[in-house]
Amino acid sequence: MSAPLADQLDIVIPTIRNLDFLEEWRPFFQPYHLIIVQDGDPTKKIHVPEGFDYELYNRNDIERILGDKAWAISFKDSACRCFGFMVSKKKYIYTIDDDCFVAKDPSGKPINVLEQHIKNLLTPSTPFFFNTLYDPYREGADFVRGYPFSLREGVATATSHGLWLNIPDYDAPTQMVKPKERNQRFVDAVMTVPKGTLYPMCGMNLAFDRELIGAGMYFGLMGEGQPIGRYDDMWAGWCTKVICDHLGVGCKTGLPYVWHSKASNPFTNLRKEYKGIFWQEEIIPFFQNVTLSKTSTSVEDLYIELADKVRKGLGHIDPYFSKLADGMVAWIEGWRMLNPPKAA
Amino acid sequence: MSAPLADQLDIVIPTIRNLDFLEEWRPFFQPYHLIIVQDGDPTKKIHVPEGFDYELYNRNDIERILGDKAWAISFKDSACRCFGFMVSKKKYIYTIDDDCFVAKDPSGKPINVLEQHIKNLLTPSTPFFFNTLYDPYREGADFVRGYPFSLREGVATATSHGLWLNIPDYDAPTQMVKPKERNQRFVDAVMTVPKGTLYPMCGMNLAFDRELIGAGMYFGLMGEGQPIGRYDDMWAGWCTKVICDHLGVGCKTGLPYVWHSKASNPFTNLRKEYKGIFWQEEIIPFFQNVTLSKTSTSVEDLYIELADKVRKGLGHIDPYFSKLADGMVAWIEGWRMLNPPKAA
Repeated sequence: MSAPLADQLDIVIPTIRNLDFLEEWRPFFQPYHLIIVQDGDPTKKIHVPEGFDYELYNRNDIERILGDKAWAISFKDSACRCFGFMVSKKKYIYTIDDDCFVAKDPSGKPINVLEQHIKNLLTPSTPFFFNTLYDPYREGADFVRGYPFSLREGVATATSHGLWLNIPDYDAPTQMVKPKERNQRFVDAVMTVPKGTLYPMCGMNLAFDRELIGAGMYFGLMGEGQPIGRYDDMWAGWCTKVICDHLGVGCKTGLPYVWHSKASNPFTNLRKEYKGIFWQEEIIPFFQNVTLSKTSTSVEDLYIELADKVRKGLGHIDPYFSKLADGMVAWIEGWRMLNPPKAA
Repeated sequence: MSAPLADQLDIVIPTIRNLDFLEEWRPFFQPYHLIIVQDGDPTKKIHVPEGFDYELYNRNDIERILGDKAWAISFKDSACRCFGFMVSKKKYIYTIDDDCFVAKDPSGKPINVLEQHIKNLLTPSTPFFFNTLYDPYREGADFVRGYPFSLREGVATATSHGLWLNIPDYDAPTQMVKPKERNQRFVDAVMTVPKGTLYPMCGMNLAFDRELIGAGMYFGLMGEGQPIGRYDDMWAGWCTKVICDHLGVGCKTGLPYVWHSKASNPFTNLRKEYKGIFWQEEIIPFFQNVTLSKTSTSVEDLYIELADKVRKGLGHIDPYFSKLADGMVAWIEGWRMLNPPKAA
């Protein structure tokens, strides 16, 4: 199996259970280093199949490492995965849920997700103009007639958002209305989400360039003690898209697919989501209209600025947003502690 | 064969030759009315296969019908097709080039282009937020988690831009660099081009709602006596996208595919295109930044306003743009003459 950039990419997996799902991924993931973020009871022992190179962090580790900033990492929610982004020392991150398995392409061949994500990250993005034949850098494709030549070099790619066959990533109301819907459509495309357009970024099958956007990949405050859940990846998606647009770097979506094995419980999901379903009606216009300081190009600085705008622009919805803004600041403090500027 | 909306859609075909290509389309097109716009020498007799219901207009007809506005319809260029849009009395238009044939889907089944275009036009568009599973109205798909519920009704769809297998729609430089490239990738997706994002609209395989956007579908001044060619559909695409964004209606791209049989001559194309290749570097930022009067909702009025902005905003590039602005005005005058307001 091809294992591109095996020394430059960490795989981050949040979990509360034994990682038997790795058996199926063994041919693809074994060459890579894993960062396992154990959620829930830290005294529980998580089994990791033999032969994988990994480090594992439980809640006690997070508390020990982050001290008075540890509260900003969610507990009892897969949002805790962002701790793994923070402790990694690699250029690239791939994160996957432990109920996702190897999907097959229409010819029946198992899909090497990392190979595709890395292709997506290593080829440019095209956020400023839409290419009707999708990713112009793919073999057999190019820019179509009418695509400005000045834009054909593209820009750096910050994120690669992969999709899911079988169980689609639906919210609780849609799950309830369509309990039997399965995603069986393999769409053979990768595209850049255009500048100025927000998208719902799902954390199930996601890769990104940690140096370009890592400091913006905070998954917010979810789970125990928080009024919402299941908006962790959405939060990170809105924040990173706004920052990527500001920096002029790209977010891609499409290939590769994983096989999402089982739907989470729609009743539990509804309880976690329902405030988010209301709140997103105000949050999304906020992110559609937010502007960041033109002179700022550091993701850390931009994220602190965004935290301030969240506090002022969303605080009226619920006191939660003020706490979330505090969490965003604490996240950057933690990030800076673990990722000090490199010596010149 | 399914022939949806056969009484509400005209097929517009610009041509200089006998329409033998219709034989392959017979099962799909025969239930529809054709408007053939004969380009070039009007004394030449074009053969149309038996059994098709059609009207044919040559240059003499255009001169007779439009009188002192006929100059605004291009001569010796497939841009003349827009005359067919003007004389149609139907709600929907499908236009196709005469070197495009029936494509097959991956299962080998011939693709019914009209059925798919009509599906695209009759289902809503989603220009305000990106759906990662593509068209949420297709069978087996929906809005993903994190898609605002307030936006799930979508908006009316104005255009449906179909793609091409075999010969891709490349400009002359790309044709020259990649003479053997063929598009063999069937991407099973339809999507809305997001609001605020321009796309290169190709006229080869295009459907639109004439009532919603017809008056903006002017293919500009190309061909004989004009300094450029092969930018007719691009011009219409930029103008209609800006107007659709202003009106809050949608432009879709993706399925259905046609089989594009042969590449046009890259040397001839380069001669036609080269000024456009320079000019589009200024034209596209112009369209990205142009704003239209907030109170105006009539496509005809908006198009006149756009003509004025073209004259002022692009006239410095070349005197051609002043003439093109005149053409845009003449087009609307012609449109109004042939499409008088319906009695209340």
